[in-house]
Amino acid sequence: MGRFTIEEMREMAKTIFLKAVSAVDPYQRLKTIARIDRNRLIIEENGTSQKVFNLSDFERVYLVGTGKASSSMAQAIEEIFGNRITKGLITTKYGHGLPLKYTEIIEAGHPLPDLKGLEGARKIKDLLKMTGPRDLVIFLISGGGSALLPLPVDGITLEEKQELTQLLLDCGADIKEINTIRKHISQIKGGWLARWAFPSTVITFILSDVVGDPLDVIASGPTVPDTSTFQDVWEILKKYSLINEIAISIRDHLQAGREGKKEETPKAGEDVFEKVHNMVIGSNIIALRAAEKEFSSAGFNTMILSSSIIGETKEAARFHGAIAREVASTGIPLNRPACILSGGETTVTIRGSGKGGRNQEFALAGAFEINGLEKAVLLSGGTDGTDGPTDAAGAIADHTTLIRASQKGLNPVKSLENNDSYPFFKRLDDLLITGPTRTNVMDVRMVLID
Amino acid sequence: MGRFTIEEMREMAKTIFLKAVSAVDPYQRLKTIARIDRNRLIIEENGTSQKVFNLSDFERVYLVGTGKASSSMAQAIEEIFGNRITKGLITTKYGHGLPLKYTEIIEAGHPLPDLKGLEGARKIKDLLKMTGPRDLVIFLISGGGSALLPLPVDGITLEEKQELTQLLLDCGADIKEINTIRKHISQIKGGWLARWAFPSTVITFILSDVVGDPLDVIASGPTVPDTSTFQDVWEILKKYSLINEIAISIRDHLQAGREGKKEETPKAGEDVFEKVHNMVIGSNIIALRAAEKEFSSAGFNTMILSSSIIGETKEAARFHGAIAREVASTGIPLNRPACILSGGETTVTIRGSGKGGRNQEFALAGAFEINGLEKAVLLSGGTDGTDGPTDAAGAIADHTTLIRASQKGLNPVKSLENNDSYPFFKRLDDLLITGPTRTNVMDVRMVLID
Repeated sequence: MGRFTIEEMREMAKTIFLKAVSAVDPYQRLKTIARIDRNRLIIEENGTSQKVFNLSDFERVYLVGTGKASSSMAQAIEEIFGNRITKGLITTKYGHGLPLKYTEIIEAGHPLPDLKGLEGARKIKDLLKMTGPRDLVIFLISGGGSALLPLPVDGITLEEKQELTQLLLDCGADIKEINTIRKHISQIKGGWLARWAFPSTVITFILSDVVGDPLDVIASGPTVPDTSTFQDVWEILKKYSLINEIAISIRDHLQAGREGKKEETPKAGEDVFEKVHNMVIGSNIIALRAAEKEFSSAGFNTMILSSSIIGETKEAARFHGAIAREVASTGIPLNRPACILSGGETTVTIRGSGKGGRNQEFALAGAFEINGLEKAVLLSGGTDGTDGPTDAAGAIADHTTLIRASQKGLNPVKSLENNDSYPFFKRLDDLLITGPTRTNVMDVRMVLID
Repeated sequence: MGRFTIEEMREMAKTIFLKAVSAVDPYQRLKTIARIDRNRLIIEENGTSQKVFNLSDFERVYLVGTGKASSSMAQAIEEIFGNRITKGLITTKYGHGLPLKYTEIIEAGHPLPDLKGLEGARKIKDLLKMTGPRDLVIFLISGGGSALLPLPVDGITLEEKQELTQLLLDCGADIKEINTIRKHISQIKGGWLARWAFPSTVITFILSDVVGDPLDVIASGPTVPDTSTFQDVWEILKKYSLINEIAISIRDHLQAGREGKKEETPKAGEDVFEKVHNMVIGSNIIALRAAEKEFSSAGFNTMILSSSIIGETKEAARFHGAIAREVASTGIPLNRPACILSGGETTVTIRGSGKGGRNQEFALAGAFEINGLEKAVLLSGGTDGTDGPTDAAGAIADHTTLIRASQKGLNPVKSLENNDSYPFFKRLDDLLITGPTRTNVMDVRMVLID
């Protein structure tokens, strides 16, 4: 019974996943929301004019950027601005460069920063320091931007900085504490990049790969005011008894900062940010909204649960399963055919030696949850097309997955226990394979119940 | 900003929690849905007539039952049927008896069954065996009914049965496997009670304390067809290598069953169930719906997420937090003022030595999730009025909880790590105290965002 066949539902899930990913393609997004009309830069979305910049106000236009998607973002800006671009420089991950006309590309190390990244960061800083009040800086940020634009303060080496991060991780410091310290030994993070670009006008286009899209966290917020101080840094070092463990160069710098002998990170309300415009152009919720629209058109009662689902993957699957079963049994919160969407990024506590990723594990754990329902499909995929160390973006499961698995002699309980979801879904031909997508706004999950 | 003050929201959460609990008071529920009119028993809900029984068809009416709420349920039936009741017998937990006019009460051991429960079960079986085709049996089931109505097959002692359960738990058998075996060594569970009442008419009123309200699981389904077989039992014993570990009496019985020398549990389609009517009169979703109605009237955009939330408590708090933050930042899935409701029963993996319960732990973990939101309240409570080994039903948290805690010198991180939520909320005067409620449909959680 129901409106759709299981094959239709599976096909729809896969197709709409790809559409959701397209909706956050940063190249497409920039081309959609930004255009130049009669020498004015218009940035608008959904017909609502957001911002207009008169280009005749500017003498020069600089294009800078960093992140794994920075070259396709730069392509869009080059197409929009054409030869208005005075000079451009971006850093991206090795192998991620694309042909650009006005912009130099420096490919660098990720996730571990290297000297190429350092070179790119230094060049960008030098470029920005030369800008004046009648210049426009377009700054492009995407995931990986933190590692791909490393520039410790003078006297501190990349290695010393990395050792510090490792020390902090080892003693259980949380990501907020780690970022507080990193921003205070960087010349880029924590608003510093805006500081160098001052007094020019800065438009930062951001592709968010962080839950909740906190601007000061994405790529460590190079053009965003910092809220922490050298004093906070000192408290953290004391808390974890690290003052005598860290490199002397770092300790001297932080000590000097604490004594007011070093400039603080730029703060909200300072002149630095007066002409800075930070704009999120792609994020998980945008992908979810695109999927919501598609499923609604297809006749599904559709609801976005949250774009911020984090936590242990198996538990997340339980939660989605609880909602799916409620839909199936009582029509709450949606009547069938129903579609529940969620986003964010869960974690997997590895207990086995298998091969998989958080999305495939979600689909496998979810297969137990929807087993026994009349008709249900579940899809989980990484919007970057990569799930864990596999060539799949995720996987698709339905209410027949466990039965089909047992017919093929697979043991889903053992596969799950061993974090071995990849071979499981490969055998069922239920992997979700997209190839690299040139974007990343974390994961998209769908549960369909008919 | 917002429509409500934080005090109003807190007050509303507490008041509506009590209303949700009232909505599943089994005495009230029975009085609402069942009545006798011109010698007909009418069972209806929301004005939709569900079932009508002509009482002149019956010679005798028997009232039997088991569970922690059986005496208040029996009170309602006595008030409805009056002296039409020929004979009555219920079992309940020590201290849970209430005055009854036509019905004998046997108080017995719970959660560990004892000889009093055995006595009650034997008497009920004997009573039912005497019933004929023109008799009506009203059977009342509530939480605890499994332990309070124990009757192993002849030759197996209560102790042997309990040892078996422990063995199964120790080797990691799941609840479904344990129930499969228990039903095959019982004279009550797995439809046996319906077997003894055959060929009378049986109306079973069920107060559900199990996620998803599976009739064959609540009190082990005494009037519900069983789907498992002696062969299934044998497979489970083999799977866990228990055949030579279990008591000889049990092994002999199960072996005989497997060889077809013992009667199977009653199955769907058999005559036994032809005149059996199982009706859930109270369940988690009913409580949630009552709360939904109240919050909607009060002006909140309200959504029931699921009545089946299980899993680790802290993880459940994360999901609710993810949804709350999405509501706060994007108005998805609901615009503010918004109310998200959920039910079910989570678990707590104990790592500390503190005092608390799953609801208080949910509120404590949730306090971190809603910290920083503009205005948010979170309540979690056990509908039976008891959360873990405490005198509280649960607790209430809001966006100021962590700040207020630090002002009082409390350490919420340590309290959570130590599973020590009770003293934490006691100190903040944020415990939810209701006293015993005479009902139990698991937990109700509310997240309010304005």
